[in-house]
Amino acid sequence: MSDELKHTSRRAFLKGGAAVMAGSVAGAATAQSADPLITEVQDWASFTGDGVDATPYGLPIEHEADVIRRNVPWLTADPISSINFTPIHALDGTITPQGCAFERHHSGAIELRKDDYRLMINGLVDRPLVFSYEDLERFPRENRVHFCECAANTGMEWAGAQLNGVQFTHGMIHNMEYSGVPLRALLEEAGLDTAGDLADKWVYVEGADASSNGRSIPMEKALDDCLVAFKANGEALRKEHGYPVRLVVPGWEGNLWVKWLRRIEVMDGPVESREETSKYTDVLADGVARKWTWVMDAKSVITSPSPQSPIKHGNGALVISGLAWSGHGRITRVDVSKDGGMTWETARLGSTQGDSKALTRFYLDTEWNGEDWLLQARAMDETGYVQPTKDQLREVRGENSIYHNNCIQTWHLKSNGEAENVEVS
Amino acid sequence: MSDELKHTSRRAFLKGGAAVMAGSVAGAATAQSADPLITEVQDWASFTGDGVDATPYGLPIEHEADVIRRNVPWLTADPISSINFTPIHALDGTITPQGCAFERHHSGAIELRKDDYRLMINGLVDRPLVFSYEDLERFPRENRVHFCECAANTGMEWAGAQLNGVQFTHGMIHNMEYSGVPLRALLEEAGLDTAGDLADKWVYVEGADASSNGRSIPMEKALDDCLVAFKANGEALRKEHGYPVRLVVPGWEGNLWVKWLRRIEVMDGPVESREETSKYTDVLADGVARKWTWVMDAKSVITSPSPQSPIKHGNGALVISGLAWSGHGRITRVDVSKDGGMTWETARLGSTQGDSKALTRFYLDTEWNGEDWLLQARAMDETGYVQPTKDQLREVRGENSIYHNNCIQTWHLKSNGEAENVEVS
Repeated sequence: MSDELKHTSRRAFLKGGAAVMAGSVAGAATAQSADPLITEVQDWASFTGDGVDATPYGLPIEHEADVIRRNVPWLTADPISSINFTPIHALDGTITPQGCAFERHHSGAIELRKDDYRLMINGLVDRPLVFSYEDLERFPRENRVHFCECAANTGMEWAGAQLNGVQFTHGMIHNMEYSGVPLRALLEEAGLDTAGDLADKWVYVEGADASSNGRSIPMEKALDDCLVAFKANGEALRKEHGYPVRLVVPGWEGNLWVKWLRRIEVMDGPVESREETSKYTDVLADGVARKWTWVMDAKSVITSPSPQSPIKHGNGALVISGLAWSGHGRITRVDVSKDGGMTWETARLGSTQGDSKALTRFYLDTEWNGEDWLLQARAMDETGYVQPTKDQLREVRGENSIYHNNCIQTWHLKSNGEAENVEVS
Repeated sequence: MSDELKHTSRRAFLKGGAAVMAGSVAGAATAQSADPLITEVQDWASFTGDGVDATPYGLPIEHEADVIRRNVPWLTADPISSINFTPIHALDGTITPQGCAFERHHSGAIELRKDDYRLMINGLVDRPLVFSYEDLERFPRENRVHFCECAANTGMEWAGAQLNGVQFTHGMIHNMEYSGVPLRALLEEAGLDTAGDLADKWVYVEGADASSNGRSIPMEKALDDCLVAFKANGEALRKEHGYPVRLVVPGWEGNLWVKWLRRIEVMDGPVESREETSKYTDVLADGVARKWTWVMDAKSVITSPSPQSPIKHGNGALVISGLAWSGHGRITRVDVSKDGGMTWETARLGSTQGDSKALTRFYLDTEWNGEDWLLQARAMDETGYVQPTKDQLREVRGENSIYHNNCIQTWHLKSNGEAENVEVS
């Protein structure tokens, strides 16, 4: 337990609790005096349950049926190219379970077998190679937790407050522990001289699905921290996450994290593929498009309270909770505002800072007594970068963009505990 | 990528690969020259897949149907009291997905609703309280990754090499990121003076299932790092893991991690309940039982190769992989022996050392050319403790024990790549 927390509740934390001890308990949402309720509580206990030997692989309990991936039907013309958003309004901590982790596919989630799987490395290498799945397992491997965020996350919000749920405004993200082989090791196996001059070299990576989703990655990044990954959160990648092998490109936009990875070609320049020209570039106000905007800049969002996670308890103690992340490294600080950015309080980072380029959970332990709040969070990362307001971002980028919207989000918290997606200027 | 790894594959890592380039590829399990295979690989690509909008909560792909919890049918008389083991032979990294995470229940996995849930704190406190689920969500919370190991893990191995699979010898363990409220905060809310003299005070914790699984915990531990947890790996606890609330007692035996937590009583001594007298004590050779043996001492095991995870590829590069953990803190070193403990090589720790009392993944990147090996791993923790051999452990504890067997495990790796559970003296 952190020292910071050790003394927060020396006083009665849920102030209502003490009042309740004196008499009435009906309807109180705060902790209640035990003695009048002991009989009721004793009755409630002492169930026997089912043996679970029949559930060799378990699923969430039926009462959590609401904690699922969801899509936005109008976002794509057909489910063959679709996006399924993480229910971040209902999660806590930092790890995303694979079962409800955001996934985006361009031509369906294809089904491969490990035995059939092959990864080719070709192009400007001394000896082009084809690796089987078993080959990959024979290389030294690493395990790292990283977030994967779609460049289009929050992309529907450029022109105004559009979607009333953090699952939809910010749910194109997940955070998992990946096990895999450094891409560097495989390139070296194919004879790439990583000690030589590779300044103008790129890799072109593509998947085995019909879209191929081909993308160019500068060699410096390919040799730095990319993983050819075959597990997420300890187990095999799910079909929709690229089984059996996907690329992990820490801190960079999710579209580069090619699923069902089938080929890596070393080239002396980028391909300028469809996915990095007509898509995944950022059209500015003057019509000029920014390209090669791979890094996901520092960003944060309050997940609770939020439109899908209203306050249901009474006045008093409230935990404001959210997520922060940066493609440039570690989050160093998150501030929370209750007045639309006029004043700020520094939040508490709620987990051990482990790997770089991973989700950070933050909390503000506060009180709420039915006030109208304009809730915002703003993240800072180890480079000193501060998450911008929407106006600041629009000033530089205009409103034509889809991608790389990392602006500060505002929720209007109302006296009834409900929250709404709004804009403030 | 670690510096250590950056230069391991400067030479051709899979030596067979180079040979294969010269001609024959049939049957070779190592990376193959790309050019003869390009046509085949191109055919294999370009599938379209299903849209996955119909899977709001995903499951593993059917090809991974073998990666499931399993039980040992003769271990308990009826599934109402059973143990389901993690398939650690098939996992990598450190996180265990909830779906296949070890679970033990004494009277079934009971089903509760959050709305019905109550947690009572009573006994020697100024104001006994009953908390609803919503009350718990209003306290400052923390997120930490911890392993949970049953005291009986490896318990069938005291008398000899018994079970031929690491899932069964060492699978009563999982490692998840827990989100919850420090128990200390709830005890303080109930008026416990944590600055006072609590040296002889205990808490008695019990669950809502018919077994109640009541256990006594000394106050020092209760106030140190215990969590009243409601999420694991970001999402709600699964039914079989104690939905909606379980106790997390980092580094201590799993039986104390009470599921469906319903009551915590502050007492001036331990209860000496069934679960801490007739069970969960360690009978020594002279018939005297050790009790209050809560901490899980440092332990490690090779998960691959192992009886359920034989070597299927050919000679040459081999990754030996395993898990290490200690209830006293962090793992500082793991050694691997190929000759039954006569000589040792230091393994590589394969992930960022985050939270204390969490699983650590280790690797030995080595070569195997069909030799007979007696594979062992031995863990060291930050206290300087070294995992003992089975003989060393028996010398002190005899062979009557069930619990707290943390001895070095031996796998006999044979020339055909298969491994067997054996003992060495």
